[in-house]
Amino acid sequence: VRIDLNADVGESFGPWPMGQDGLLIPLMTSVNVACGFHAGDPLTMERTVEHALAAGVGVGAHPGYPDREGFGRRALAMSPAELEAAVLYQVAALDGVCAALGATLGHVKPHGALYDRVRDDREAAEALCRAVRRLAEAVGRPLTIVGPPGSALLAAAEVLSLPAAAEGFADRAYEPDGRLRSRRLPGAVLDDPTTAAAQAVSLADSGRFATLCVHGDTPGATDVARAVREALSAAGHEVARLDRAGVG
Amino acid sequence: VRIDLNADVGESFGPWPMGQDGLLIPLMTSVNVACGFHAGDPLTMERTVEHALAAGVGVGAHPGYPDREGFGRRALAMSPAELEAAVLYQVAALDGVCAALGATLGHVKPHGALYDRVRDDREAAEALCRAVRRLAEAVGRPLTIVGPPGSALLAAAEVLSLPAAAEGFADRAYEPDGRLRSRRLPGAVLDDPTTAAAQAVSLADSGRFATLCVHGDTPGATDVARAVREALSAAGHEVARLDRAGVG
Amino acid sequence: VRIDLNADVGESFGPWPMGQDGLLIPLMTSVNVACGFHAGDPLTMERTVEHALAAGVGVGAHPGYPDREGFGRRALAMSPAELEAAVLYQVAALDGVCAALGATLGHVKPHGALYDRVRDDREAAEALCRAVRRLAEAVGRPLTIVGPPGSALLAAAEVLSLPAAAEGFADRAYEPDGRLRSRRLPGAVLDDPTTAAAQAVSLADSGRFATLCVHGDTPGATDVARAVREALSAAGHEVARLDRAGVG
Amino acid sequence: VRIDLNADVGESFGPWPMGQDGLLIPLMTSVNVACGFHAGDPLTMERTVEHALAAGVGVGAHPGYPDREGFGRRALAMSPAELEAAVLYQVAALDGVCAALGATLGHVKPHGALYDRVRDDREAAEALCRAVRRLAEAVGRPLTIVGPPGSALLAAAEVLSLPAAAEGFADRAYEPDGRLRSRRLPGAVLDDPTTAAAQAVSLADSGRFATLCVHGDTPGATDVARAVREALSAAGHEVARLDRAGVG
Repeated sequence: VRIDLNADVGESFGPWPMGQDGLLIPLMTSVNVACGFHAGDPLTMERTVEHALAAGVGVGAHPGYPDREGFGRRALAMSPAELEAAVLYQVAALDGVCAALGATLGHVKPHGALYDRVRDDREAAEALCRAVRRLAEAVGRPLTIVGPPGSALLAAAEVLSLPAAAEGFADRAYEPDGRLRSRRLPGAVLDDPTTAAAQAVSLADSGRFATLCVHGDTPGATDVARAVREALSAAGHEVARLDRAGVG
Repeated sequence: VRIDLNADVGESFGPWPMGQDGLLIPLMTSVNVACGFHAGDPLTMERTVEHALAAGVGVGAHPGYPDREGFGRRALAMSPAELEAAVLYQVAALDGVCAALGATLGHVKPHGALYDRVRDDREAAEALCRAVRRLAEAVGRPLTIVGPPGSALLAAAEVLSLPAAAEGFADRAYEPDGRLRSRRLPGAVLDDPTTAAAQAVSLADSGRFATLCVHGDTPGATDVARAVREALSAAGHEVARLDRAGVG
Repeated sequence: VRIDLNADVGESFGPWPMGQDGLLIPLMTSVNVACGFHAGDPLTMERTVEHALAAGVGVGAHPGYPDREGFGRRALAMSPAELEAAVLYQVAALDGVCAALGATLGHVKPHGALYDRVRDDREAAEALCRAVRRLAEAVGRPLTIVGPPGSALLAAAEVLSLPAAAEGFADRAYEPDGRLRSRRLPGAVLDDPTTAAAQAVSLADSGRFATLCVHGDTPGATDVARAVREALSAAGHEVARLDRAGVG
Repeated sequence: VRIDLNADVGESFGPWPMGQDGLLIPLMTSVNVACGFHAGDPLTMERTVEHALAAGVGVGAHPGYPDREGFGRRALAMSPAELEAAVLYQVAALDGVCAALGATLGHVKPHGALYDRVRDDREAAEALCRAVRRLAEAVGRPLTIVGPPGSALLAAAEVLSLPAAAEGFADRAYEPDGRLRSRRLPGAVLDDPTTAAAQAVSLADSGRFATLCVHGDTPGATDVARAVREALSAAGHEVARLDRAGVG
């Protein structure tokens, strides 16, 4: 069975570096690039897409709330209209950067508190998908929506005939109800490579996920990523780019 | 002789309106839309492009320095690399917004202190044109550079084979050396419709300009715009969209 | 009976004016000055405090969420610790501006979505009051908390021994449960001077309020303010500055 | 002879850490705290002042241009009036944070491109000093201006009767004309502890400096700081807080 491995990248801002994109990107099959609202800036976006191109991985947009200080992790009560416009703007900016560099934007995954919101908030999910759908039609190319299985987001994608990919988290603990454990609780992040690898295999085996996320902002992120990738292969899963996997 | 009439629009930000776009846009043949760095925001950009579409005028990007508080009118020592990335980002974002709305982005005119810089700063002018050229190639459509005649900007456009349009200002006083009078000096803005109209005809008669700018941020802006347009027609100039005038 | 009349002022930002502070301030007895997070900027703050000084009205801080694009009217999930630090920063900045101009900061009234939040959210209300209390102790001067009667905010002020002033709205419609009608509903703003004046008198008569707010962002704001002030006087209320009224 | 050792600290922003303040601050005698415009945020400011208090070092303000993306290192053509207001705002905010924590703000040192500007730009230097003077008078406490020897800044401080401290850089190469070597040139930063220590002793021996700066944003910053401090003591200089050294 095919599975994609994705990571959030391009999260530096101006003078402040974040993550280890140079090391992490080659271990992934897809990356989600911050678009300048919660993280990233125009120069960082270009460099990140160049890295992704060089590594041959799929490139997606990672739009977020306009809140750098809170890194897009604080809920912000944007109206659906504001949200739709903000997502269109961010994804369009990155799409242009990709096009200028010879890369092809393939997917969109909301970030942080926006990701959390579109799990359940149907209006917001539809606003987000409308923005992506309008841009996809304008550029004449499909854009896959990445989000939690069973979410309002993936439901909205289906309604709008957008390809959709259910995402699991290799290195985040799940609660029994299928939600991610809050980052404020202990044990929320699985930073042990073996534990994360085992969870990744279990998630892939379940057949419920088209892509698995590995976080890049922990000290041992590359070790986790490598362990996850090896374990998936060893378990017979083909780790392959989302946009070449016939998802959706 | 054909001449285009342009205005800077979409300069509201969040709760703060600016200008009278609804009245001004139909009097123009082209508009330059702020892209969210010095003014404008995603929702304002959408609404402004909708206005322009409805009025049938040409749409261009009006990128500026990332300085809302100074409205992009304060020189900011961005490096050429930062500038190139920032222009690509802004123009790409607006291009996507246009595409999603069924409009076609046709030109790029830098704003404020950036406009002033690329008059003489060759490195900056080339960085700006490289950004536009890369995007134009990526989208397979020409993007015309709008700037002052004799500027480093128009020279860079020529070097990079981008169409270029020399711009005059109907309602700004010129110094004898051909530069605009500084906004800090008295008489810098010609807010009398008759005076501006006379200057517009004189500029158009000179044959040195492909487009004339009328400002929208003065109380009598629409009166000035109407007077300019009528005077140009009366003097035998065909007022027509830049992107349909075979410029470049 | 004494009652204070307050308005939110200093809400311009950079090139974007808002309100008619020059006309409105002299009609008030206290003003709440935006502190640069949701509106205002350093130069606007100085000019606004100068206006207030010249008019002899009381000056208070009007801190808000760091969200200019949304004008601080969109809920932002800042943690109590973030909130406490953000309020301390904003109030301290304005306090220094006041001190440098010879004015004395006298009160603090949260803005927009933050005002709404501290109505019920006890943790946030206590964080806000802790910030104000710490600054008040540091400068050796009381700072009065302004907020809705019966709110978590005024309760927290009492716990922390801060003077508190219950606020009513002359020109906003109330729901039967005592809450303000949402701005999204019709009739939320009472822009008829006679209606607002009548409501102001009724609120003052009730004895439940130490200060009444009049909004400055409507076209007829000064007419409303004048009518409110005259009606209060005619009804026998003494319109006088909060900080000279022995409130708290 | 007494000499102060200072470092720029509090330069994290939101989710992005910078420097190693926890290790560096105890090695200094004074620190310059970013005020939220080019770096820092309200929570970071509080934590940084707490560190400084715990370490018993002097606390100063490090105001900069409102340009986070460029880290205040890009010249921004703010007018003197804008500059004066922006410096007053930043220093007042930090002064309030200090006061609330029981610390006493003692000095002001401009950051980055603003530091460079007030070396020669008399109008800007006077604007900055006016802001500091107004706040110092308001709080009834002297605030020392820190800047390059022979600069317009220190001249303006003298004119305005503000205490002033000439600053040298232990770990930055000097050009023969006494200017710092540009960061764009090789060898601009002396990251070898022995070299920096030797330069520090030489600068202190010259008697021209009241304080020496050590940078915190290099990997070996604490090694450099330790070496500098030990070398100064070994050479017979008393390393002591600026605000206790009778400077000015």
